[in-house]
This record gives sequence, C-alpha cells and structure tokens, in this order.
Amino acid sequence: MTYCVAIKLNAGLVFLSDSRTNAGLDQISSFRKMIVYEKAGERFMVLLSAGNLSISQSVREILQTEQIKNGESGEPITIWNATSMFDAVRVLGAAVRHVHERDGAALQSAGVEFNVSILFGGQIQGEGMRLFQVYSAGNFIEATSETPYFQVGESKYGKPVLDRVLTPETPLNEAAKCALVSMDSTLKSNLSVGLPLDLVVYEVGRFATDKLICIDEHNPYFRMLHDSWGQKLRQVFDSIEDPAWNGGSTQVPLMVPPARSGPLKKITNPLDKLI
Amino acid sequence: MTYCVAIKLNAGLVFLSDSRTNAGLDQISSFRKMIVYEKAGERFMVLLSAGNLSISQSVREILQTEQIKNGESGEPITIWNATSMFDAVRVLGAAVRHVHERDGAALQSAGVEFNVSILFGGQIQGEGMRLFQVYSAGNFIEATSETPYFQVGESKYGKPVLDRVLTPETPLNEAAKCALVSMDSTLKSNLSVGLPLDLVVYEVGRFATDKLICIDEHNPYFRMLHDSWGQKLRQVFDSIEDPAWNGGSTQVPLMVPPARSGPLKKITNPLDKLI
Repeated sequence: MTYCVAIKLNAGLVFLSDSRTNAGLDQISSFRKMIVYEKAGERFMVLLSAGNLSISQSVREILQTEQIKNGESGEPITIWNATSMFDAVRVLGAAVRHVHERDGAALQSAGVEFNVSILFGGQIQGEGMRLFQVYSAGNFIEATSETPYFQVGESKYGKPVLDRVLTPETPLNEAAKCALVSMDSTLKSNLSVGLPLDLVVYEVGRFATDKLICIDEHNPYFRMLHDSWGQKLRQVFDSIEDPAWNGGSTQVPLMVPPARSGPLKKITNPLDKLI
Repeated sequence: MTYCVAIKLNAGLVFLSDSRTNAGLDQISSFRKMIVYEKAGERFMVLLSAGNLSISQSVREILQTEQIKNGESGEPITIWNATSMFDAVRVLGAAVRHVHERDGAALQSAGVEFNVSILFGGQIQGEGMRLFQVYSAGNFIEATSETPYFQVGESKYGKPVLDRVLTPETPLNEAAKCALVSMDSTLKSNLSVGLPLDLVVYEVGRFATDKLICIDEHNPYFRMLHDSWGQKLRQVFDSIEDPAWNGGSTQVPLMVPPARSGPLKKITNPLDKLI
C-alpha cells in the first residue's frame, strides 16, 4: 500500500509520501513515490503516486516526453513548456491514458484493475500555486480553500488530524508537522505503509526549493514527533474523566438517557419481541 | 454505514454501537444495532451487527428460535439453553446460514453482496466471558488477550486510540471512555456513522447489567468528552515544535537526511533519467 498527502496553503505547498510497496504480504519493497520537477525560477512541480506500481512507474516515465496539442496554435504542450499548471495536469492525464491504452486490456484479461491515483501540484511563473488529484481515467480535480489537501492510498487513519488542523492560513512548517503526524498515525496502524518518507516544502513564488528531505527511522525530528505524540495523546486520554454511572460524583457529567429514545430494551426470554 | 466496537477485559465487557443506516447517501435512517439478551443470574449476551440491514434484522429475528443439535444427545441447543458461549455463537452462525439459504441467491441475482458482520459476546454461568466476531459465512473468530477488541463497520478512523490504550488490564470505565473516543473520531470523519449511540458495560460474573445507556447529542458526558478531546488534541499538536530547516535553532531536532537513501533527486529537464 501507500500513503501520500499534499497540502495547499496560502504560504506554499507541502508534499509527503511513504515508500512501502507490496504485492501481497510476502513481497514488500521500498520504492519512492515522489518526483520533483524543477526549472529554477520558472516552474516547480511535485508528483506523488499510489496504486499499481507498474502503472505509476510507466506514467512517470512517459510524462517526461508526453505531449498534448495546444487548441489554438496546435503547438505541442509538455510539462516543461506548459504555461499553466492546468495545462501541465492535462499532460499528466494524457500520460495516464496512454498507459491505459498500452496496458489496460492486458491487465483486465489478467484480472488486474487499472488502478493509479496521483497528486500533482506546483507553480508555474505567471500564475498562483495549484494542486490536483488525477484519477485512473486521466480526469482530475483541484484543491480549493475549503478542501486544502488531498490524500491517496491508505488515507483514513491519518485524516482526523488533517481535518482538525489545516486551513489555508496554516503556516508551512506547522502543516509539515501536521502531515508528519498524519503519516505517523498511518504507519502505526497499517503495516503496508513504511519508512523512509519523502517530504518537500515549497514556498509560494520561489519556483524552486531546498526544503526536500528523506526521513528514515534515525531522523531526530521524526523520532521526537513520534514519541511526543504517542505520550501526550495518552496523557490527554488519561486527563479526561471516566464516565460515572451511579451519580455519586458531582464532578463528572453523568450519563443520562435521552428523552426521545430511552434505553435499549433487553430481551429476557425467547418469546420477547425485538420491536 | 455503521461503527460497532466490542472489548473484552479482565474486568468485563464493553459494547458500543452507532445507529445510522444508509442505503445510498439520500436514504439515511436511524436503526439500533445492539441487542442485549439477559437471563439474570444465568446468562448475559450482547449482539452488535453491521452490514446489510435486511440480513442483520433477519438474523436477529430468527436467532430467538434458532436451534442446533447437540452432537452427543441430539437435544436442540438455543442461545437460551446453551451451556457455553461457544455453543451460543454456533447457534448464531447457524442463523446467519439460514438467512443465506433463504435470501442469498435472490440477493446475488440482484447484484447485492450477502454482507453481514456481527460481534457477539457475553458470559454463561459456568465459564468465563467470551467475545466473538461472526462473518457472513457463519464462521467466527474469538478475541484473545493479545487482541482484546473487535470492530465492525467503519473501523479505521477509530482504531488508533484503541491500539494505544487497550490491554486486558484496562479498567471497565476507562475502556468505555476509550470506545467513546474511538466513536467520536469516527463520527467526525464519516457522515454515515451517527448518533444516538448504545453503550453497555458488563462486569464479569454479574450475569446482568444496569450499565446500559443510549447516548444522544445532549448527553453531558459525551459532549464533555467530544469537546475536551478536540481541544486537548489541538493543544498537544501545538506543543510539539515545528520542524526546523536551517540549523539555526539548537532546541529543535534537525531534519537530517539518512546516510543510506540520501535526498530525492530533482528532475530539472526532459532529458533527466528518473533512476
């Protein structure tokens, strides 16, 4: 499996991916799922991929040379000359469709779903940052201020903290911390998501970044975060009072049944009706 | 959807279920998913169900009269005369198979999966407490001290806190709190899980309980727990330092690349090789 998250903030973009790949439980390998495309001062793009590894590797390979036609001039558009992220993601969608044309029928006849999910975001000189999620059919959606992040892969374990913390105003390094906590929860609960991680933080208008790091189990920041989060979560849990049942305590809010539903009816012999 | 969790501790059992049922997103209703079977002083059993509502309602209906044959005497065994929870869960498995015989083919021809998941636990005079998860085929597994809880339905959002807190030594009311935190995370992230909740806490050897409550949005304990957990989680998040990138701070553990993998290679023009 895989877990990747990408976040779009007013201050910039954050991308984080794990590196575990598995075909069944007995074939586990490490593949990096992030690619950074940078033409310093002009364009900066990051691609994160989940799904079938043969498909995502093929998409990444042909994306380097994929072209679509400009509707007006007929000139070829690539990710390296596109004048907008919208055009760049259209090129990526076309690359997904090319791989589908090449492999889709053979995969289907082998009973393998054509399954790939891609996050693609960045900035091209002349417009603002944009972040997209691309589906297996080559279609895509764009992140907005209401939904400033996308996840692909094993997304559920790590979603609650993103929902609690992220807004477009979140500072970049706080969002990076949030992505790492989200990843830490996912690592804890799903064996098929694993270290090392790749993290990129991009500041709006830079068209380049030097905040690009691979994080393994020896990384001191990630170790600190992992240990602190686990310990403090437990402290918070302990600090909340246990429920009280007998009304003896005045400090703990009591468990009282609601007026409407009432408590559950007990079934006490075989002749009792359920309803 | 549904979320149900059942926990087996040395001190007793905890059962918690939501009550939202949906057929598509535009047909949402409230159905209770918990049934308590109690013959005071002799047997106490709780059933929680997830999956297709027509199947789980049928199973619950016929369970009242379902029988299996005792291997030695040939006498009929029901949930009301079974001398062990193992026999009782075999009766439940037989009820699932009866519904499958009755409805399975018709459901299949309509393209509907025969999908039901049941948690069933309790205690019968003469043996210890036991907790089972029953599958659609009527087969089942039992909770052990290594895995003291089962979940059915939308289980991922609420799993991390169970993994962090629960052991067989956990006190009953602390486990009830843990189940409620797990439910709160699930309610927050999945619209198809909803209030009111049914909660039962059973103390070992009692063969009855009065700790049985329906919790809706006005329940003061659940409101306190919901608010405290959200606020304190955010405080914990804020208390962990953001990552530092430039080495300027000595207090924050630095993000340093691991020796083995090194940082990600950037792709800077169309001729760059990915590998």
